Amino acid sequence: MEKFWFILLSLVLSYASSEASQCSIKGLPLVRNISELPQDNYGRAGLSHITVAGSVSHGMKEVEVWLQTFSPGSRTPIHRHSGEEVFVVLKGSGTLYLASSSHEKYPGKPQEYFIFSNSTFVIPVNDVHQVWNSNENEDLQMLAIISRPPIKVYVTSLPPSFCTSIFAVTMLFRTLLLYSYLWIETFAPPTLLNMLSRFIYNDWSMPHTAAKLKFPYFWDEQCLQEHVKDEL
Amino acid sequence: MEKFWFILLSLVLSYASSEASQCSIKGLPLVRNISELPQDNYGRAGLSHITVAGSVSHGMKEVEVWLQTFSPGSRTPIHRHSGEEVFVVLKGSGTLYLASSSHEKYPGKPQEYFIFSNSTFVIPVNDVHQVWNSNENEDLQMLAIISRPPIKVYVTSLPPSFCTSIFAVTMLFRTLLLYSYLWIETFAPPTLLNMLSRFIYNDWSMPHTAAKLKFPYFWDEQCLQEHVKDEL
Ligand SMILES: [Zn+2]
Ligand SMILES: [Zn+2]
Repeated sequence: MEKFWFILLSLVLSYASSEASQCSIKGLPLVRNISELPQDNYGRAGLSHITVAGSVSHGMKEVEVWLQTFSPGSRTPIHRHSGEEVFVVLKGSGTLYLASSSHEKYPGKPQEYFIFSNSTFVIPVNDVHQVWNSNENEDLQMLAIISRPPIKVYVTSLPPSFCTSIFAVTMLFRTLLLYSYLWIETFAPPTLLNMLSRFIYNDWSMPHTAAKLKFPYFWDEQCLQEHVKDEL
Repeated sequence: MEKFWFILLSLVLSYASSEASQCSIKGLPLVRNISELPQDNYGRAGLSHITVAGSVSHGMKEVEVWLQTFSPGSRTPIHRHSGEEVFVVLKGSGTLYLASSSHEKYPGKPQEYFIFSNSTFVIPVNDVHQVWNSNENEDLQMLAIISRPPIKVYVTSLPPSFCTSIFAVTMLFRTLLLYSYLWIETFAPPTLLNMLSRFIYNDWSMPHTAAKLKFPYFWDEQCLQEHVKDEL
């Protein structure tokens, strides 16, 4: 009977520590096997997301790299963000929808581009876009590379816990933030806004002002909450 | 005879325009086949380099993506730089040499790491490193992702030609810059230094102060000269 509790306790502990390692690279080797990194759909049907190098989990300050696999028919949200994004298609094919930024009040009818294995494309900053796996027979696998906004210039001279504090404050005021977007756009320093701004659209005719602020990203949410708890 | 000159002229023109497209994405489709992008060894034996998305050729401001293939025995220089770097190994295997930054006057004996297909690693900012294809039987192919330094914060409010002007000035004073490194380190704003700082070492015991400033990168040199000529 004691042995049973011991095994149960070990299981719980190992689960807890494997959970923790999803949000930190502590204890992981410098050279990591991508197929052994945590992958999840983060609540999005048909998605497999792996953070190859990320700000929350790996402490990246300037760039993030994701490996994403979309099953047939699945897709990203319609969205825009303030960082540069480069895609490298590793497997499969699909469709990129891209609404070039203009002075319209909403994205409008996007252009369609065929994307294919070994192709690459760059999403211009703040252009509204969506990627679909429109190939019924195959998964679409891509590396997505996004730049972190230039907040680092201000952060480098501050203590490392500053970033976590920003996250903490942001988590606490997230609802407030959603509704104070216009205020932020008008008064906040542009670098702070950059860090926050990933906006999601329901469709291509949704006004830019109605797009929903999505912060943190789906895959960072849980880890950020853990980091904030550790810090408080 | 006229036909001969016509063909010759066409060849020269098409060569000239294919040269130009190495340095610009004008006329290229948004979604590009990576295997059709220009590749070269840029004077480095055993290397095949493709700029998948770059600052000089694609106008990237925050991140660059390179596809590099190293034949057996070939390697990067021993070097350090101020941007973050993420590697994703696509094919083959090899060795990463990494000297963790410390308070030494030179990099010192590096640690060795085995790198392999489907592995990833992050080079911490300014840590001296080198990647070897130490596998006799196979090419080593990697995606290298580097962040651009935070110069953009200052540039965004300036006219687009400002960046080219900096490059022009830098090209003109390059020799001067090499010898004024210590002056720059002491007096220049840190962001400007960041843009310039990729340093190359002859060996692991070379003092940091003797490492050679390498700007522009091997693959940007020709295109930068063309851009500068266009601008002047
Ligand atoms: Zn995106
Ligand atoms: Zn490097």
